[in-house]
Amino acid sequence: MPDILRREDLDFILHDLLDASRLAATDLYAGQDPADWSAALDLAEQLAEEVFQPIAAELDAHEPEFDGERVHVPASLQAALDTYRDSGLPTAGFPEDVGGMNLPCVVSQAIYALLAAANGPALGYNMLTVAAANLLNAHGSDDLKDRYLAPMVEGRFFGTMCLSEPQAGSSLADIRTKAEAQADGSYRLTGRKMWISGGEHDLSENIVHFVLAKIPGGPPGVRGISLFCVPRILPDGTRNDVQLMGLNHKMGNRGTVNTVLAFGDAGGAQGWRVGPEHGGLACMFVMMNEMRIGVGLGAATTAVTGYLHALSYAKARPQGRPLTGRDPAQPPIAIIEHADVRRNLLQAKAYAEGGLALCLWAATLVDEERAGDAEQAARATRLLDILTPIVKSWPSEFGIRANDLAIQVHGGYGYTRDYPVERLWRDNRLNPIHEGTKGIQGLDLLGRKVTARGGATFAALMDDIDAAAAAAAGDPVLAALAEPLASAAARARAATGRLTAQAPQIGAEAFTANATVYLDMLGHVVVGWLWLRMAGAAQAGLAAGATGPRADLLEGKLAAARFFMAQELPFVHAQCSILESLDRSALDAPVAARRGRSDAPSERGDGRVQRAAVQAFQDAALGVHEGQFLRHEE
Amino acid sequence: MPDILRREDLDFILHDLLDASRLAATDLYAGQDPADWSAALDLAEQLAEEVFQPIAAELDAHEPEFDGERVHVPASLQAALDTYRDSGLPTAGFPEDVGGMNLPCVVSQAIYALLAAANGPALGYNMLTVAAANLLNAHGSDDLKDRYLAPMVEGRFFGTMCLSEPQAGSSLADIRTKAEAQADGSYRLTGRKMWISGGEHDLSENIVHFVLAKIPGGPPGVRGISLFCVPRILPDGTRNDVQLMGLNHKMGNRGTVNTVLAFGDAGGAQGWRVGPEHGGLACMFVMMNEMRIGVGLGAATTAVTGYLHALSYAKARPQGRPLTGRDPAQPPIAIIEHADVRRNLLQAKAYAEGGLALCLWAATLVDEERAGDAEQAARATRLLDILTPIVKSWPSEFGIRANDLAIQVHGGYGYTRDYPVERLWRDNRLNPIHEGTKGIQGLDLLGRKVTARGGATFAALMDDIDAAAAAAAGDPVLAALAEPLASAAARARAATGRLTAQAPQIGAEAFTANATVYLDMLGHVVVGWLWLRMAGAAQAGLAAGATGPRADLLEGKLAAARFFMAQELPFVHAQCSILESLDRSALDAPVAARRGRSDAPSERGDGRVQRAAVQAFQDAALGVHEGQFLRHEE
Repeated sequence: MPDILRREDLDFILHDLLDASRLAATDLYAGQDPADWSAALDLAEQLAEEVFQPIAAELDAHEPEFDGERVHVPASLQAALDTYRDSGLPTAGFPEDVGGMNLPCVVSQAIYALLAAANGPALGYNMLTVAAANLLNAHGSDDLKDRYLAPMVEGRFFGTMCLSEPQAGSSLADIRTKAEAQADGSYRLTGRKMWISGGEHDLSENIVHFVLAKIPGGPPGVRGISLFCVPRILPDGTRNDVQLMGLNHKMGNRGTVNTVLAFGDAGGAQGWRVGPEHGGLACMFVMMNEMRIGVGLGAATTAVTGYLHALSYAKARPQGRPLTGRDPAQPPIAIIEHADVRRNLLQAKAYAEGGLALCLWAATLVDEERAGDAEQAARATRLLDILTPIVKSWPSEFGIRANDLAIQVHGGYGYTRDYPVERLWRDNRLNPIHEGTKGIQGLDLLGRKVTARGGATFAALMDDIDAAAAAAAGDPVLAALAEPLASAAARARAATGRLTAQAPQIGAEAFTANATVYLDMLGHVVVGWLWLRMAGAAQAGLAAGATGPRADLLEGKLAAARFFMAQELPFVHAQCSILESLDRSALDAPVAARRGRSDAPSERGDGRVQRAAVQAFQDAALGVHEGQFLRHEE
Repeated sequence: MPDILRREDLDFILHDLLDASRLAATDLYAGQDPADWSAALDLAEQLAEEVFQPIAAELDAHEPEFDGERVHVPASLQAALDTYRDSGLPTAGFPEDVGGMNLPCVVSQAIYALLAAANGPALGYNMLTVAAANLLNAHGSDDLKDRYLAPMVEGRFFGTMCLSEPQAGSSLADIRTKAEAQADGSYRLTGRKMWISGGEHDLSENIVHFVLAKIPGGPPGVRGISLFCVPRILPDGTRNDVQLMGLNHKMGNRGTVNTVLAFGDAGGAQGWRVGPEHGGLACMFVMMNEMRIGVGLGAATTAVTGYLHALSYAKARPQGRPLTGRDPAQPPIAIIEHADVRRNLLQAKAYAEGGLALCLWAATLVDEERAGDAEQAARATRLLDILTPIVKSWPSEFGIRANDLAIQVHGGYGYTRDYPVERLWRDNRLNPIHEGTKGIQGLDLLGRKVTARGGATFAALMDDIDAAAAAAAGDPVLAALAEPLASAAARARAATGRLTAQAPQIGAEAFTANATVYLDMLGHVVVGWLWLRMAGAAQAGLAAGATGPRADLLEGKLAAARFFMAQELPFVHAQCSILESLDRSALDAPVAARRGRSDAPSERGDGRVQRAAVQAFQDAALGVHEGQFLRHEE
C-alpha cells in the first residue's frame, strides 16, 4: 500500500465538502462531465503510485550534482517526468485556446495533490512551469506566446521564476539585475539570481526563465522592476548567456534542483519584456494566489502522506500492553491502541486533512472567481484576498507539525532513513520560507488584508463563519462542534477589533509586532470552520445511510473535527489574549542585549533608537507597506 | 566567533541564578575552590571551540560506515575524543575514590553543556560512558569495578547501555535476550539489541556493554530482567561474541554511531551479572535522573547554539527597510530590526536558555540530594522526582522549536547545508524519542509523579512556585512578571485538582489520555518559574550597578523573561481548559475510522472494545503502570 493521499479522502473533500460537480453547470466549464474529472484523477493516482512515489527516496538520497558543465539528476526523474508529460495531465488546468483541458482549478489542484503527496520535489518542475505559463499567457506578447506557450503547456519546455538575488530575498526593492534595451526590441540582461528552482538541467527541451530586472533610468525600488522572458535555448538553437554558478544543497526537497544563475556574464543574456516597462512586479503578482495555494497544497499533502505512513505503522507495530491490563503473558497490542499514539495520529490527521481542505476550497474560490456570477465572483475574490496568506502559511506551519508527529509515532525508527517520515519532515520545512516567509504572510494578513476596505473583508469572512456555526447549532451532533468554533470566532473578532482600534495610537510596527501570532490564530479559526463543514458533510453522509468503509471514513472525519474543536481551538483564546495585550516584549528587547561577544559595547542602545522611530510614526496612517511586495525566499 | 553556548550565559545561570559556589561549603565538596571549577569550564570552553565545534559539520556529512568488518568514522573524531580524554575532563563528575575530580554535578553538567553545544554527537560517547560507569560503581561487584571502572572513568574504555531490542523498544517487558549461568559464575548471553549508541567502533581500547537480559526460569515481564556487564574485549584479550549486525542510518546525530548488536551468535557472549538476579531494571533506573538531565541538556544546548547562529546572522544580514520608513534609496537595515525577526529570536532565546536553566537547576538538585542536609536532600529528591520527566521533555520539545525558529531567521539560507542551523534541527529531533518517548514521560508525570504521595509532591512544587511569585510581587520590575506566573500556576493547580478528582470515575486511560498536554503545560509553568528567578537575578545584578556588556546581558534576560510571561504562559490556560474538559476525542476515535485501504471492514468497532475495557477499569485504583519501566527508544 503506497500510503500516499487516499482517493476516498480526496473525493470526500471534492464532493462531500465542496460539491465540485456544480462547477460543470457554469458557462466556463459547460459541457464538462465530472466523470471525466474522475478519470483524470484516476490517471493521476496511478502516476502517483506507480511512477512518482517509487522514486521519492532515491531523489532524496541522490541530490542533483554539478560537474562544472552539466547538472546530473537520477535517470528515474527524467523517466517519471516524461511519463507525466506524455499522460497529458500537465495541460489539465490551462484554457482550451492554449491547448489545455480547461479543467476547473480545484480539479487541477486535486491532480497536483495526488502527485505532490507521492513526490512533491518531482512535481515541482511542473508546478513552476504552470505558474510561468500562466504568467506568459496573461502578460506575454503574441510573439512570445507563439514561441513558448504551447510547449510549456504540454510540458516539453519547463519554466522558472527568477526573483531573488543573493542580496535581495524578501526585499525585491534591492534587486540589481539590469536589462538594457536593444535595437531589435529585445533586452540584454546582466545579474545574478538566487534560489532558482529548476534553473538548470537537461530534463526538458528548453527552460524558459521569467526574470525580474531593472531597466536603467527607471524609478527606484519595486516601482522600477520589469519582467523578462529569457529562454535557456534561443530561437536560433544556440545557448543563451545564462550560466549555472552553483547548486544550493538543501536539507530536503532535493529532487528539485535549486540554483544560482548568472545572466550575461559573457556579454548579456537575451530576453524579451513581458508586461509594461517598470510594471513587472504587478504582472508577477497576478499569479500569486494560485502559486501560494500550490505551496499550501504541497505542505498539506506532504503532511497527509506522513500521517498515513504513521497510521499504517501504528496498526502494524505491536508494543506494550493496555494500561488497563498489563499481563506480560498476554501478547502486546498494536501501538494504535495506546492513547497517546491515537492522540498523535488524530492531531496529525486534523492538521493534514484540515490543510488540504483549506487549499482545495481556495481552489474552488478561484473557480468561482472565474466562472461564477457577479455576486459569487465578488465573494470569492474577497475571500481569496484575505485567505491567501493563511492558505500559504497554515498548512506549512501545521503540516510540519503533522510530519513531526508522524516521526514520533514511529519512535526510533522514525528517526532513521529506513522510513520515509523523516524525509517528509525535511521536505516540508521549505514551505514556511519560500514564496513569502511566514513573517511576511503575517504582515500581509494583519497589516493589509484585515484592515483593507475598513475591515469589511475581514467582517464578511467572520460573518460567514458565524453563519455556519449558527446553522450547525441546531443539529444534535454538530452543535457540540459549532459552539467552540463560534466562541473562538467571537474572540478572534473581538481581538481584531481591539487591535485595529489601537493601531493609530500604537503605530504600524507595534500593530504588526505579533502578526505571526495573528496569522496562526486566524488560521485556526478558518480551519475550524472547514472542520465544521467537513463534519456536516460527514454527518449528512451518515444520515443518508452510509455503511462499511464509507461510514468508517465519515466517522473518521467527525473524530478529527471533534479533536480540532476540543484540542486546537482553545489555543485561539490564548493567542487572542496575547494580541489584545499589545505585547511589545519582542519589539522592546534591546538589540544590544542580544549582542554576540564580538560586538562593540558602543552598539548598546540601538533598540532605543528603533523605539523612537516607532513613536515618531505613531500618528501616521495605517496603510502599512502598501506597494511593498516582499514575497520570496529568505 | 564560534556561536556556541556563551560562557557569560552559562556563568549567569551557575552564579546569578543558582549560586553554585555555595556547594563548596558542603561536606561532600569541602575544600574545593569555585575558581577551580571556572578553570575546568575554561578548559571545556577551549575544547568546545577548538576541538569539538570545528568537526561537527564533518561528522554530520560523513556518517559512520560499516564495511562488514569494521566501523569507519572520520579520523577527526578519534583525535577529538583523544584530546578530550587527555584533558582529564571526563573524570570531572566522578568521586575521588574512583579516580574522579568529585566536581559538583552542576559543574560537570556545565562542562557537558559547553561541549554538547559545540558537538553533541561527539560528546555522546562520553555521556554514555559516564552513565555506564556510574551504574557499575553503584551496583557492580568489586571484581568488575577493579577491571573496568578506572579505564571508564579515565575515558579509555567506552560504555554502552543495551536495553531495546528490535521487537521491544518502549516495552522492556518483552525483551528476549537470554543469560544462562555458567559454572565459573559468569553468564552466556544470546540475543539481539537495537538502537545501541556507541555499540561498535575502534575509538576506545574497549567497549563495556551493560545489557538487560532474562535468566531462564525467572518471573515474566520486567520483574524477570537482570543486568550484565559484557565487554567487547574479554579479560584474556580476545574478542567477546558480540557482533555488529548493522548500523542505523539516522537523519541527524550522525557522529554517534548507532548499532544493532548480536550477542552470542557464535555460542554465547560472556558476561557478568551486575546487581541481583531479576533485579536488573531497578539498578538501571538508579542512573535515570542524571541520564534524563543529560538528554534535556543536550536538547537545550543544541537549541542555544542554533539561537546564537540566528542572532549573528540577523545582525549581519541586511534586508528590507523599516515599516516606518521604506525609502528604497536608503540602505537596507539588518534583519534584527524587523519586528518578526526579533520575535523569532526572543522566542528561541526564551526556549533555549529556559531549558538550559531548567537542566542546570536540576543538576544542583542532584548535588543537594547528595550533599545537602536532610531537609535539603528530601526537598531535592521530591523536586527531582516530579521534575525529571519535564527536564527530559521540555527542552526536547521546545529546543526543536528554537532550532526551527533559527532556520526561519536564516530564510532560504537556513534551509541549506551551508549553514549549521538545519543540522542542529535534525540532531535535536532524536531527543523527544530516546531515553523514554515524550508520551512515556507524560504518563510518568501525570500517571505517577503528580499523583504520588496523595499529590503532596505536586503540591510542594506548586507551593514553591507560588512563594516565588508572591515574593516577586513586591518588586516594581518583577511584579509584572510574577502576576502571569501566579495566574498560570493557580490555573495549573486547579486543573490538576479537577483532573485527579475525576480519576477514579473516568479510569486510568481517560485520566492520562491527554498526558502530553499536561507535560507541556506543567513544563511551561516550571520554566516560567525559572524565568522569574532569572529575571530576579538579572534585576539584582542591575541594581548592584552592572554596566557595559554585563548590563546588556542582564537586560537580555529580563527581555526574554518578559516575552515568556507575555507570550508563552497564556498557552497554559488553553492547555488547562483542554485538560479540565476531560476531552476523550482521541480515545473515542474509532480505530476503524483510521483504517488504511488494505484493512478488512470487519476490523471496524475495535475502538469500542477498547472503550469497554476502560469502562470496566473505572473503579480500579489509580496506581497506573506502577512498576512499568517504559523508557527507551521506539
